[in-house]
Amino acid sequence: MVCTVQISSSNGNANPNKGSAAALAAEPIPEEFSPVEICGPLSPDVTADEKLRSGNGEKEIVLGKNVRSSCLAITEPEADDEVTGEREAYMASVLAKYRRSLIERTKHHLGYPYNLDFDYGALAQLQMFSINNLGDPFIESNYGVHSRQFEVGVLDWFARLWELEKHEYWGYITNCGTEGNLHGVLVGREVLPDGVLYASRETHYSIFKAARMYRMELVKVDTLISGEIDCADFKQRLLQNKDKPAIVNVNIGTTVKGAIDDLDMVIQTLEETGFTQDRFYIHCDGALFGLMMPFVKRAPKVTFKKPIGSVSVSGHKFVGCPMPCGVQITRIEHINALSRNVEYLASVDATIMGSRNGHAPIFLWYTLNRKGYRGFQKEVQKCLRNAHYLKGCLQSAGISAMLNELSSTVVFERPQDETFVRKWQLACQGNIAHVVVMPNVTIEKLDYFVNELIENRPGWFPDGNVVTPCISNDIGEGNCACLNHNRV
Amino acid sequence: MVCTVQISSSNGNANPNKGSAAALAAEPIPEEFSPVEICGPLSPDVTADEKLRSGNGEKEIVLGKNVRSSCLAITEPEADDEVTGEREAYMASVLAKYRRSLIERTKHHLGYPYNLDFDYGALAQLQMFSINNLGDPFIESNYGVHSRQFEVGVLDWFARLWELEKHEYWGYITNCGTEGNLHGVLVGREVLPDGVLYASRETHYSIFKAARMYRMELVKVDTLISGEIDCADFKQRLLQNKDKPAIVNVNIGTTVKGAIDDLDMVIQTLEETGFTQDRFYIHCDGALFGLMMPFVKRAPKVTFKKPIGSVSVSGHKFVGCPMPCGVQITRIEHINALSRNVEYLASVDATIMGSRNGHAPIFLWYTLNRKGYRGFQKEVQKCLRNAHYLKGCLQSAGISAMLNELSSTVVFERPQDETFVRKWQLACQGNIAHVVVMPNVTIEKLDYFVNELIENRPGWFPDGNVVTPCISNDIGEGNCACLNHNRV
Repeated sequence: MVCTVQISSSNGNANPNKGSAAALAAEPIPEEFSPVEICGPLSPDVTADEKLRSGNGEKEIVLGKNVRSSCLAITEPEADDEVTGEREAYMASVLAKYRRSLIERTKHHLGYPYNLDFDYGALAQLQMFSINNLGDPFIESNYGVHSRQFEVGVLDWFARLWELEKHEYWGYITNCGTEGNLHGVLVGREVLPDGVLYASRETHYSIFKAARMYRMELVKVDTLISGEIDCADFKQRLLQNKDKPAIVNVNIGTTVKGAIDDLDMVIQTLEETGFTQDRFYIHCDGALFGLMMPFVKRAPKVTFKKPIGSVSVSGHKFVGCPMPCGVQITRIEHINALSRNVEYLASVDATIMGSRNGHAPIFLWYTLNRKGYRGFQKEVQKCLRNAHYLKGCLQSAGISAMLNELSSTVVFERPQDETFVRKWQLACQGNIAHVVVMPNVTIEKLDYFVNELIENRPGWFPDGNVVTPCISNDIGEGNCACLNHNRV
Repeated sequence: MVCTVQISSSNGNANPNKGSAAALAAEPIPEEFSPVEICGPLSPDVTADEKLRSGNGEKEIVLGKNVRSSCLAITEPEADDEVTGEREAYMASVLAKYRRSLIERTKHHLGYPYNLDFDYGALAQLQMFSINNLGDPFIESNYGVHSRQFEVGVLDWFARLWELEKHEYWGYITNCGTEGNLHGVLVGREVLPDGVLYASRETHYSIFKAARMYRMELVKVDTLISGEIDCADFKQRLLQNKDKPAIVNVNIGTTVKGAIDDLDMVIQTLEETGFTQDRFYIHCDGALFGLMMPFVKRAPKVTFKKPIGSVSVSGHKFVGCPMPCGVQITRIEHINALSRNVEYLASVDATIMGSRNGHAPIFLWYTLNRKGYRGFQKEVQKCLRNAHYLKGCLQSAGISAMLNELSSTVVFERPQDETFVRKWQLACQGNIAHVVVMPNVTIEKLDYFVNELIENRPGWFPDGNVVTPCISNDIGEGNCACLNHNRV
């Protein structure tokens, strides 16, 4: 594969600030930097700090800079609006402008793991119906406008992917990855009521939110530089809490680095520390990679043939969907155990939500049926290939970059310009940013991005002298292109 | 208003089984009655009982009778599918059939509080975008394909409706009424960590689910025959738990009877038992009526000028929306209190979900802007009028029926035929069924329904002799048309 990026002459060579000690430290975040602009799927700590108001040290919700000013107020119609058609005209113009902005924003999008490449034109005919799969997917309610026949088809497909027989699983289509995680942890807690929740520091914040919501004891486990859970630390923590069962969240792709926790080693660690299968519950948060991994040959397998309790995956990520959704699969015996609990049954069904979006299952059904296993495999391969291409381009340009094996998330030096970050909708955390290479991200788009990055980068440094910051703490010395570590 | 229903001669007169003692008792549920067909927004206890397997007394999830057989399996595409077009043709035929069934099911729908009358054709152009308002509505994330400008417009409208200034409220558009309730109870618990949760027996099951999820102490309060909370019993329960703060769920329209708890009396009861405002938190579950009540003159007002903490309402109910959604409004100081809690901030934002459907706010914005306050007022009046019409028709036909003042939910004798119940998608509980008169329910549809009910009813009794069951325990003696109570 040949990297076609044009390297602009100003920073094609080693950094001119060679001797400067200051140049080795990470660039500080500029003072005018607005905290409201960088929220997103960031790590909890960073965001908490950035929300910290400098004034009195109290944390509070900061209103979005633009949301209030750009807010589209709802106004009372005039009595003659229907006659003049002015209201209709106003609304049509708002929508037309909004649509144009969506096209523009969709075009320049790299930071979030959403596949924006889908064509659901054939399903537009269903938008006029109020489709609601309230309650359990397998128990029909009397409300007739539902899509359970599609939902169960989708669930069967995922159960097969993760090797659980039809009569052995229960699941449902959720509103997003968070709902899957909330459900997985809840099932774990109901199975092991006094269990301690273990999750690595780089786990998605919804797991920590769950611990708080459910009043569970939480133990954070260290991570390796790759972002994977550190099983040596995990072992220590397990030994410290030996008397209580373990509920473990395993990341099949962390939010920031796309790191995949080693499921086999997690199970081995549990066994080595004396946790028998009746004393642990594993939930796999497969948000993005839960659907990609099965198509990568060398990847450690996520399968219910191993002693795991549940797997969740997002539907709007790799599959692509107009609205967020997800799939949650668990063992039916856990749900039966819940159902035997009379108090729990106060909830009629075992989902988190009551009413459930009936359109999402049809979107998923449509894509799965069109692409099939083979189609997904091709797309996964393309994403991994393009991610390697991007990493190569960045490194050739002297920009620090990391790509975990089996991942399509490329982590690199955070661009020091918020306009650039916003244009490409990069998710940032501390000194690093990332691009998630999804099926809609082509080589052409990556070239365009890298060229723009290289052209603009010198302007973010005093006098245009690029000083590559050290980000070895985030991505390891081997990936760092700063003066100290770059051995190019 | 004249009732135009034709009363069929077979049951236009008093019940022929007059002397029979058996006739006075409620009709038992027929034996062949399938539990899986009557799930839905039923009360917890009933459903739990109906799920009880008669065999071993263990409760378990019962697979839907038809879901497995009608499930649309996902199959791997053939290699030549793209050439032959067979897959496309198959999928198009599935969708066309499904669409026809949706039209049919939408036409015969009376039991759920969903307004099925909407025209979002103008928004079809947005279906091709992956719109996601992840996190806080007021804090922009870097993901550019969002609809926060619409969302904040909608939230402002609801805050104004419930009399909270822009700078005083926080809220977001949820996935459904349940999420609003989960959020309201969670805010209450965070404000008063050792608070006891009080809710009437006829409260939506999501509140009981919340208590379980959040490991909160729960106290169920008795109800009046109307379905409203019994404040005498509430007082007793408060006195029994005087040492702990109170988190109270107030129903603005119960699921089954559409009963509206008396908010003023709830507040008065709290004050009378010595609960000062810093020792109670009130969440108003306004699922359906939260949006109708403000337009009914005599209705007790839901307003933040009273000491309430949060209000939630469903968006797919009275407004109408292709997918479930809801609105949650709370006082900003509660959210600030949450945010000051470092551990809580581990969740980046104060919503329950992370990724959030960005289409729902646009649907809501579109309808609110088109109809305005005046438009909603007209529709509310129409619904209340039509509900009274339906109740009159049923009573004239000798069928027990109840309609709470200020409500559009007509409760009546449960039709003893599951085919009929399923055709009209009636939500049933024990001996009663209900119709929720929504804007799409016309007089013509009600006439059609009542005629069919009257024509078929005799067939559900031995030899066609109608024995009106006594349902006075459910709807009160004054509304019961059984031999003992009917004074017609």
